[in-house]
Amino acid sequence: MNDRFNGKFIVLDGPDGCGKSTQTRMLSEWISRQGIEAVSYRDPGTTVVGEKIRTILLDPAHEGMGDNVEVLLYMAARAQLWKERIGPDLASGKCVLMDRWVSSTCAYQGWAGGFGIEKVIKIANDALERVWPDVIFVLDVDTATAAQRMQRDLDRMEQKGQAYHGRVREGFLRLPQYFAGTRIVDARRGVEQVQEEIRKILNPKL
Amino acid sequence: MNDRFNGKFIVLDGPDGCGKSTQTRMLSEWISRQGIEAVSYRDPGTTVVGEKIRTILLDPAHEGMGDNVEVLLYMAARAQLWKERIGPDLASGKCVLMDRWVSSTCAYQGWAGGFGIEKVIKIANDALERVWPDVIFVLDVDTATAAQRMQRDLDRMEQKGQAYHGRVREGFLRLPQYFAGTRIVDARRGVEQVQEEIRKILNPKL
Repeated sequence: MNDRFNGKFIVLDGPDGCGKSTQTRMLSEWISRQGIEAVSYRDPGTTVVGEKIRTILLDPAHEGMGDNVEVLLYMAARAQLWKERIGPDLASGKCVLMDRWVSSTCAYQGWAGGFGIEKVIKIANDALERVWPDVIFVLDVDTATAAQRMQRDLDRMEQKGQAYHGRVREGFLRLPQYFAGTRIVDARRGVEQVQEEIRKILNPKL
Repeated sequence: MNDRFNGKFIVLDGPDGCGKSTQTRMLSEWISRQGIEAVSYRDPGTTVVGEKIRTILLDPAHEGMGDNVEVLLYMAARAQLWKERIGPDLASGKCVLMDRWVSSTCAYQGWAGGFGIEKVIKIANDALERVWPDVIFVLDVDTATAAQRMQRDLDRMEQKGQAYHGRVREGFLRLPQYFAGTRIVDARRGVEQVQEEIRKILNPKL
């Protein structure tokens, strides 16, 4: 455990196709090389209960699901992940990297779905131990670039169409109003450049 | 549709073994005989998404589930049930009878689990269209009587032990503080007597 590292709860978020998963993996390796134990989790999922909730959320057959239902299910998966992994990991001094978190629900259901970012945050405040991480990296891409990168079968969220995904992007760009620890990173650039910028932001904390 | 019937959203609730399901069925038949279309639903469940959530909630393998996770999952099942059935049914003038509702989450997770009744109600207020029905009948039984009536394999909630179920009963008895439309009915008596009291309370509305 390295005491100089103040930001141990780190979220990488952004629209589908922004490159979160790749960046999370690269960042995890880099943090480990600094001698800090790093773990990374995907949200929703990771726990037994969370993976079952993830299956319900992403099943294309559930197209009539309400935005409020989505919000509650994402929070439920998150609450279990906090209880089983994130909470104990942070307590033992590990660095936790999240691929998505409450920020995703703010952008997708809160803004793009019209449920309201404030209401998402209120539910998260009542239901979760900790709503905000130390830093959220929003990997920003335009919808055309994102769509080009998604060359596979799409799940229920990904199938929602370009207009919806444009609003998702807007939702992410609104996050700094709600959480000062948000850093918007231009993710239209190459993988190495994006990673370099993320490390540059985190480096003073090491 | 009968305009004299003002209380069209009716909840029957109480500890496991209080006889809710039987009373709901009898009440539904009686209301139908008054010429009012009545539907009854079980919560959590009824919808495709809700039944999948119910399966996660009641699986005895999920013993490490957080109280906040339970609260969120119950609310998610409820939100979908409102969207698909309760909302449209009430709008078309039907009488909706619920076997459990938000009141159950107040008693189980809010009070017995220690999550807090106020927090349950706050989440419900943010997530659901309508938190309180026109009337809640709490069918009150002592834990010994309730246990005697439960002669089958128990699900995860039912397995939580007598001390927990004693607190569940206390939680239900606290409901009038939060919702003035609560009616506590002594359900240790015979099925017919309990039903008669429920009908007597509803009758002036017909």
